[in-house]
Amino acid sequence: MAKEIDNLWREVRELSLGTKIERLDSPPSPVKFLRDYVSQSKPCVISNAIAHWPALKLWSDPAYLSRALSNDLVSLHLTPNGCADAVTPVGDRDDLCFASAHVEKVLFPEALQAVQSSCKGKKVGYLQQQNDCFRTEYSTVGLDCDGDISWATEAFGCSPEAVNLWIGTEHSVTSFHKDHYENLYAVVSGEKHFLLLPPTDVHRLYIEQYPAANYSYNRDTEAFKLEVGEPMRHVPWCSVDPYPSSENEASERLKYPLFFNGPKPFHCTVKAGEILYLPSMWFHHVSQTPGDGGYTIAVNYWYDMQFDIKYAYFNFLQSLSYKSSSLNPILSWREDEDWESSDAERNSD
Amino acid sequence: MAKEIDNLWREVRELSLGTKIERLDSPPSPVKFLRDYVSQSKPCVISNAIAHWPALKLWSDPAYLSRALSNDLVSLHLTPNGCADAVTPVGDRDDLCFASAHVEKVLFPEALQAVQSSCKGKKVGYLQQQNDCFRTEYSTVGLDCDGDISWATEAFGCSPEAVNLWIGTEHSVTSFHKDHYENLYAVVSGEKHFLLLPPTDVHRLYIEQYPAANYSYNRDTEAFKLEVGEPMRHVPWCSVDPYPSSENEASERLKYPLFFNGPKPFHCTVKAGEILYLPSMWFHHVSQTPGDGGYTIAVNYWYDMQFDIKYAYFNFLQSLSYKSSSLNPILSWREDEDWESSDAERNSD
Repeated sequence: MAKEIDNLWREVRELSLGTKIERLDSPPSPVKFLRDYVSQSKPCVISNAIAHWPALKLWSDPAYLSRALSNDLVSLHLTPNGCADAVTPVGDRDDLCFASAHVEKVLFPEALQAVQSSCKGKKVGYLQQQNDCFRTEYSTVGLDCDGDISWATEAFGCSPEAVNLWIGTEHSVTSFHKDHYENLYAVVSGEKHFLLLPPTDVHRLYIEQYPAANYSYNRDTEAFKLEVGEPMRHVPWCSVDPYPSSENEASERLKYPLFFNGPKPFHCTVKAGEILYLPSMWFHHVSQTPGDGGYTIAVNYWYDMQFDIKYAYFNFLQSLSYKSSSLNPILSWREDEDWESSDAERNSD
Repeated sequence: MAKEIDNLWREVRELSLGTKIERLDSPPSPVKFLRDYVSQSKPCVISNAIAHWPALKLWSDPAYLSRALSNDLVSLHLTPNGCADAVTPVGDRDDLCFASAHVEKVLFPEALQAVQSSCKGKKVGYLQQQNDCFRTEYSTVGLDCDGDISWATEAFGCSPEAVNLWIGTEHSVTSFHKDHYENLYAVVSGEKHFLLLPPTDVHRLYIEQYPAANYSYNRDTEAFKLEVGEPMRHVPWCSVDPYPSSENEASERLKYPLFFNGPKPFHCTVKAGEILYLPSMWFHHVSQTPGDGGYTIAVNYWYDMQFDIKYAYFNFLQSLSYKSSSLNPILSWREDEDWESSDAERNSD
């Protein structure tokens, strides 16, 4: 089975994906977008796609945003290390859990201040509420952006199901996961760095069930507590951290050989003014570099996906276990393949 | 493995395909065609799609065609039984081969006469040359149809790679196979009956390698000879005949249980004036009912397919063997599933 799955990883790259994420100089027509990207489950980065948004100029100024949203309560996500929604050690025995951030509703100027003054290891703030927050919490500045991505709306035949705003710094990272949505991800300020793996590579992420846990933050002691929820609920999540600390690197590489020794993830940096089309079911890991205002801002549009033959094939693939038929525990492709080095290069597009 | 493959067959039907081929009352826009059918690898039948073609009226009159094409040489395909391009017993030991028709170039009026006077078991004529014949052999009547299907051309972003004409009778049948093209299949006279299986069902067709053989026809003795070519060449082809003779039925059902006991193939009848969109890689078996002129005429447009993630998934699936993990040789789905009866109903849409 391992050999057949390795062949799938190779073939989807050789036939369709190539080695780099495609770039378009201007928005595609709905027909081209469907034909060349959506139908083929192929990401692309589109330049000059949001040049007409007032946000592109206005939002790099923190004073503008704080003034415009001075009376708006927003959801601030707090963690000690910037890893919200991530697999994290918990408890005395360092068992792994799926940790969610401490969330509190605060006035936007205070929230932005918390983001900008983030300090890794102490307290990292991230505005990343994913429940259509741009059209609810941030409606005051709604007219600074378009309500949808018009050519995508025409292609998908529906309006976005949710529009989310993200404001963070280099301290905030989103761990590998996939979404059941077609995603148009527009960067307004700063840069976002994506590591991408196609749905065919599901075994390489080592998805496991982790107990759901939550951070809580005590303002008085300035301390975080991480506790598994009661009753215990499990969340399937990717185990792989593509950028392990140097002390963990050797053990992580041993634990997750299909990721570290297999084909290199696609990497792309999306700059202010660009949109990433991230097809549904693609695995993505996201980090960021702040712009002039000291933060990265993005707005993403989630459109309903089609649960079609591609989705059925994905579920089939995921239902199989990756087993080497050889007696040798080394990945079967290593016997006859010569993948590029899999060292994920951070921020070097 | 068997259980996982069974689940794939079920899921693609439950999530996407449903139980019937969708029907549209008029041609879709290129965007709708891509979004709802091409991207999802989902067939559909479109009515009122070729009402403006002069062929729709003119071609049911054999006198018109014979007059218009009186000086044109066309490729006439002859077999004793109407099964060209089909798995057929050959030689003293009745080994199976992949048999191609005897092909001769004759003037169209003579060819049409051969088609109309077809007699199963003796000599069956079929005009079915698949090398872009409509734009070469039949160019004299080219203006009776459109040169492409305009909304499909816009959707696929290219002109048809080949356009083929088919003139046959109820004696001619095309056995199960798949094409590496997107197919727009327009019926001009009579009816075509399709049995369809999605690419996910590849194991159910029992594709095997068969030696290529050719019929040759002797005009003097009026006898066919079937001989395996030299040097021997093998052709991968579907083994299943969905309509076995009553004497063979029991043994065929035993030989091909995944076909006969699995989910029923999709069936659709395409009438004069309608177009079937047959996605690339779908397996299809085609039979026909003549119209007023005593024959069935169709024109099909082959557009280049995308070798994308769907194609990579298909190759992956095909590379796996269907093996029941249970000790019981009965198909795993039979333990807990209740598929509809798989009796393919002929001509009952």
